[in-house]
Amino acid sequence: MKTLIENAVVLTMADEKITPMNILVSDGRIEALGTEAFKADVVIDGTDTLVMPGLVNAHTHIAMSLLRNYADDLDFWPWLTQRIWPAEAKLDSRKVYWGSMLSIAEMLSKGITAFSDMYFFTEETIKAVEETGIRANLNRGLTSGEDEDMKLENALELYEKHHLKGDGRIKIDLGPHAPYTCEQGLFKKIIAAGRSRDTRIHIHLSESRKEVRDSYEKHGMSPIQYVDSLGLFELPTQAAHCVHIDDEDMKILKSRDVSVVNNPSSNLKLANGFAPVAKMLTMGINVALGTDGPSSNNNQDLFEEMHLAALVNKGYEENPTVLRAYEVLQMATINGARALGIEEKVGTIEVGKKADLIMIDLKAPHLNPRNNLLSSLVYSVSSSDVVLTMVEGKVLYREGEFLTLNIEKVLKNANEEALEMTRND
Amino acid sequence: MKTLIENAVVLTMADEKITPMNILVSDGRIEALGTEAFKADVVIDGTDTLVMPGLVNAHTHIAMSLLRNYADDLDFWPWLTQRIWPAEAKLDSRKVYWGSMLSIAEMLSKGITAFSDMYFFTEETIKAVEETGIRANLNRGLTSGEDEDMKLENALELYEKHHLKGDGRIKIDLGPHAPYTCEQGLFKKIIAAGRSRDTRIHIHLSESRKEVRDSYEKHGMSPIQYVDSLGLFELPTQAAHCVHIDDEDMKILKSRDVSVVNNPSSNLKLANGFAPVAKMLTMGINVALGTDGPSSNNNQDLFEEMHLAALVNKGYEENPTVLRAYEVLQMATINGARALGIEEKVGTIEVGKKADLIMIDLKAPHLNPRNNLLSSLVYSVSSSDVVLTMVEGKVLYREGEFLTLNIEKVLKNANEEALEMTRND
Repeated sequence: MKTLIENAVVLTMADEKITPMNILVSDGRIEALGTEAFKADVVIDGTDTLVMPGLVNAHTHIAMSLLRNYADDLDFWPWLTQRIWPAEAKLDSRKVYWGSMLSIAEMLSKGITAFSDMYFFTEETIKAVEETGIRANLNRGLTSGEDEDMKLENALELYEKHHLKGDGRIKIDLGPHAPYTCEQGLFKKIIAAGRSRDTRIHIHLSESRKEVRDSYEKHGMSPIQYVDSLGLFELPTQAAHCVHIDDEDMKILKSRDVSVVNNPSSNLKLANGFAPVAKMLTMGINVALGTDGPSSNNNQDLFEEMHLAALVNKGYEENPTVLRAYEVLQMATINGARALGIEEKVGTIEVGKKADLIMIDLKAPHLNPRNNLLSSLVYSVSSSDVVLTMVEGKVLYREGEFLTLNIEKVLKNANEEALEMTRND
Repeated sequence: MKTLIENAVVLTMADEKITPMNILVSDGRIEALGTEAFKADVVIDGTDTLVMPGLVNAHTHIAMSLLRNYADDLDFWPWLTQRIWPAEAKLDSRKVYWGSMLSIAEMLSKGITAFSDMYFFTEETIKAVEETGIRANLNRGLTSGEDEDMKLENALELYEKHHLKGDGRIKIDLGPHAPYTCEQGLFKKIIAAGRSRDTRIHIHLSESRKEVRDSYEKHGMSPIQYVDSLGLFELPTQAAHCVHIDDEDMKILKSRDVSVVNNPSSNLKLANGFAPVAKMLTMGINVALGTDGPSSNNNQDLFEEMHLAALVNKGYEENPTVLRAYEVLQMATINGARALGIEEKVGTIEVGKKADLIMIDLKAPHLNPRNNLLSSLVYSVSSSDVVLTMVEGKVLYREGEFLTLNIEKVLKNANEEALEMTRND
């Protein structure tokens, strides 16, 4: 079946241009791009809309949607150890499934077509990904302790069973949680397991000042220097946060081709601070964008993260020319695809790539006049302007309707499960 | 005519509680609040919604919507002097009217019920305010030069003609633009004119480092100390920005009861930096929120400003407990009303006050589960969740429909006028 999107202006992200263009989609791929009238079975009218690549949410824990707004305006360590971890101890498969469905609904409605997730009960998130048709890299979070071998076993089983499932939309990564929760022995086992598989590393690095201070005390090195010394970066790696990093850290990230995932909302809300994004971009480090989990944000809105990244870094550097609109759009699309190791498939709209794209209604007052649409996408847009979300050529969301999930059922079940989790507070 | 809003939960902002409550509106005022079934001519069903006071946008230049996204990612002084001022030189009545209408449409759709504006061709903005039914404090920007007396004359004429017009919804302020554009003589004239009238001062203060540095060079004082020494703060004053201020400045602001309007998007986007909002709040200074003009932001979205203020100040102070959700909601409602001198009329939902309120749909995925709605309103909400905006008991916006303006006509005319303004670039 061939689908044609016509009458829209298109930002392919192969370059900065926004031009009128028809898009022909066939078997989940972009078959042709151009101004000619392609023949198709289904025609989607894009009048007064802009089409661009779907956004890539490169770091999250989507099932934490159940804990949205459950613990706010608190210090980081009490937030994590006294609120989040005790609530998470009540997690079960059912909760992770409905929490995942809720976040996937939110992401699809906001133009996110791929995400990278670290959590538990990963089978349930995989089920939600398969059912809804979104694209995802998933990993089971790994931490040291008596059960660390069991967890790693579980992670490798997930890999055997699900890697490249769902027509290749699902990829399984290995997820050492962080240097402060994983001992050296576990890192060694993970690296050994990763070497013999087509898998990637997804890790939290240098998120808080305390983490970095503790690392220097324990290892005499920064968290990034430490995991590098263990050989972790031999495997393709995406590192979330990287807030408190120095020049030496950045040199390592660049030379080892580590992708950094910037999570501005989470870093600010938990008061961890400002990652040196402008400097990383100047050094040529691949910086992607993430929302982090919905309980440290508290939504899954990558347009909001783009807006924040562009603004906050200008303020932080006291330089309004850093993080130009197009650079920020790259962070949320092609850089995200690179971080997930799927840049050959998605991240730009090009012939031969998968048709993961979104359509933005340009009729809202805040998107007019149209002096510069590229700027509008970063500085003026709202995620609610997304009117269509397509993954592998399949429309998953259109004008408030979800085509692969029952939103009333998702809301009802997610609310019930959340109530159970937070009842005894 | 009596209007009843029933089945909603209500955040009155008289306190932090969110409870089920019916709201009876009569002759533009809130006649009764309670759980009983009031009799009314019109009933608005609030099932699955939250009702709260309308937001107050305490500093903007709404007609600048025509220059939205016209000049981005540029340094502040070239932005202002090479792009904005030359474009503004092409302004005329027609442009200001359609630019105002566009911004009013945007603000109504995003739950803003009152705004405070400084610009030119103020008659046109007043016309737009009268037609659409929104509430506004308006002033004609005043700067020194050969024509300064003519401008002040014009400002005083506006006051005589329009102050308290539109059933009292319109108030006329005096607007000395800034200490770097107004000489001492002009300040003296403005203060003298203000003394004999029921009017307020709206001014930009200490926005950029350069402004403060120049002030010390020229006057040996900070901009705030300088205008205080001239006696400006004898008149009730709202001061936009106050980014680069010290303890002495804050003491003056507090002792003179000056309201500060924080504009986080604008301050970050133009790289002016971070205003010490947490400190000002701790000192008891009344801090309100503003969007600033749409060409330095680039939208009129006070929910986005709330989100930014809450997050950015946590990051800046490295303290997640500052600017709690409720404090930020106060900034956008009652503190804004105080800044505009209309706190007796609006800013909270209380019996006897004007019915300026908004209704937020709680069914979006990002507002579920409902662990803490107060947090949701700051950390998760999108301005597109606003489904109804009421000013003085009159519904002005409901579910995408504007009841007092023709949105197609506004978009068409605003785009045409913008094109004319930017044509010869």
